Amino acid sequence: MERDTLKPIIWDDKNSQLILIDQRKLPHKLEYFICNNYEDVAFAIEDMVVRGAPAIGISAAYGMALAEIKGDDIEKAYHRLKNTRPTAVNLFWALDRCMKAYNNNRSILSEAKLIHEEDREACKKIGEIGERVIEDGDTILTHCNAGALATSIYGTALSVIRFAHYRGKNIKVIVDETRPRLQGAKLTSFELKYEGIPVKIITDSTAGFLMKRGMIDKVIVGADRVLRDYTVFNKIGTYSLAVLAKYHNIPFYVASPTSTFDFESSIEDVIIEERDEKEVLYIDGRRIAPEGVKAYNYAFDITPFELITGIITEKGIIYNEKDKRIRT
Amino acid sequence: MERDTLKPIIWDDKNSQLILIDQRKLPHKLEYFICNNYEDVAFAIEDMVVRGAPAIGISAAYGMALAEIKGDDIEKAYHRLKNTRPTAVNLFWALDRCMKAYNNNRSILSEAKLIHEEDREACKKIGEIGERVIEDGDTILTHCNAGALATSIYGTALSVIRFAHYRGKNIKVIVDETRPRLQGAKLTSFELKYEGIPVKIITDSTAGFLMKRGMIDKVIVGADRVLRDYTVFNKIGTYSLAVLAKYHNIPFYVASPTSTFDFESSIEDVIIEERDEKEVLYIDGRRIAPEGVKAYNYAFDITPFELITGIITEKGIIYNEKDKRIRT
Repeated sequence: MERDTLKPIIWDDKNSQLILIDQRKLPHKLEYFICNNYEDVAFAIEDMVVRGAPAIGISAAYGMALAEIKGDDIEKAYHRLKNTRPTAVNLFWALDRCMKAYNNNRSILSEAKLIHEEDREACKKIGEIGERVIEDGDTILTHCNAGALATSIYGTALSVIRFAHYRGKNIKVIVDETRPRLQGAKLTSFELKYEGIPVKIITDSTAGFLMKRGMIDKVIVGADRVLRDYTVFNKIGTYSLAVLAKYHNIPFYVASPTSTFDFESSIEDVIIEERDEKEVLYIDGRRIAPEGVKAYNYAFDITPFELITGIITEKGIIYNEKDKRIRT
Repeated sequence: MERDTLKPIIWDDKNSQLILIDQRKLPHKLEYFICNNYEDVAFAIEDMVVRGAPAIGISAAYGMALAEIKGDDIEKAYHRLKNTRPTAVNLFWALDRCMKAYNNNRSILSEAKLIHEEDREACKKIGEIGERVIEDGDTILTHCNAGALATSIYGTALSVIRFAHYRGKNIKVIVDETRPRLQGAKLTSFELKYEGIPVKIITDSTAGFLMKRGMIDKVIVGADRVLRDYTVFNKIGTYSLAVLAKYHNIPFYVASPTSTFDFESSIEDVIIEERDEKEVLYIDGRRIAPEGVKAYNYAFDITPFELITGIITEKGIIYNEKDKRIRT
């Protein structure tokens, strides 16, 4: 039985609409963004109405379904959606599944619903399997939002945290605010408060100091792409946390459904998205930096498996056997 | 001869006023904050009109001078100013010097002017001595603002950078935005632009990724307090950068006048300031986090000497002889 928790993606069969929680408005307003066609979906992905690797994949699949329903050029829809964001692999994986269904004269909408359903199952399994790495009394650091809002339900890293909580473990969470988009401060804290899990926000530069002070027992993050050697692409800042966790001998877990795995690409093939520098130079529409000064705005970074204790998937945990940190 | 550069602290002898650049208004407005009495100075320190260890010390000394001029209770002024901020040692050092002058029937104002003058000299020396660690073509990462605005002139870390630039070395600077107060994005970028030194801003979680990519040659930061074993207290995030620099074999320098040295205290004696959580939960007066969610807001962290390549002072560079990183 599914618990009553946040669901950021709803397919409305009656009106053939994709209904998304507008994550740009959280945490202050819970508003919905209605997609009537694939262009609406493409915009929603680009502008981060919806974000998080699995949620992007599911939304893009429904975008393809909308193209099918409206009688649009499916190839065109495929390419439009494909070019929205470059790093998270679920986007390409979901689009390719839809394209294949279409080429085999199967319903794209059915395929989209299947992708959605599989993600619900995977996120639940990740929580059930992953929660065993959490001990009663743990304080867990997470980064960005690898929560229900990034998936269909429960999340990836936050599914692990949710299920530890559901099973009665007494845990606390510390979340990096995650500049520039502040998904940690805005979304993860919102989700955890919704669940009644104690959470505190820190600035992104505080984690190392808390590790040194013994205030963090585990780190758990999500993933936007996992390569065959288990290199992890995830939100900028993940790599720094992984180095810091290793230095302080703190277990570092990645939680990710296998839909996020990409066994085809090598590191060089993956494009690290560079988003508009305005995300750094402005906050809420107000410029913080002097006029004329520029910024780098890499959205993702790359963490080698050697810095990871284990990757928690719906099929089990891939432990790094060379990792010497104490596991639970 | 002093160069024409930013000077955040001006003593106006004619009107017996302390004139501070109001750093809360930068980079968009260059406004001044006038202190007519020691209470104005105490407020300016608390509210970060003026910030940076040396600048706080100089300002506090003029605050004592104002108490002397106005005929206020000197003991009371001393305690009021002492309780403004707990971590940077220059505050206590400067206040004690003023108190000693007063007890010996010397002019507090003369002592304040001397402290101010000594800092100008020290910052210049730090630049002249420190610039030799910079190579032509270097890209230097810095954090927060250890610039002219944090001192009397030139700065500490930024004095090293300025003098490398003055001597014709072709350098680039990358600065962490430095949440929550954004001194990197607002102040350091402002200073470097003013000097014509190329600068780019990054979010605080980006540094590790750039180090991994080989985009950073040196790290130079300031200090708020240096203990006798050369443990460095500095802006939150410094420790994480030091761990990351060590991991990537990138030289990590601290630039600090000896006025910031405290050979009396041990680590346990030093209070790490925890500022109002609103600095994290709000940006520019607007709440980013959900209602009811809390934050940690440690303003400083602690970096052991083992992570430091060298400490650049006005008396010379204290190299860490055990550090294996290549020095220049």
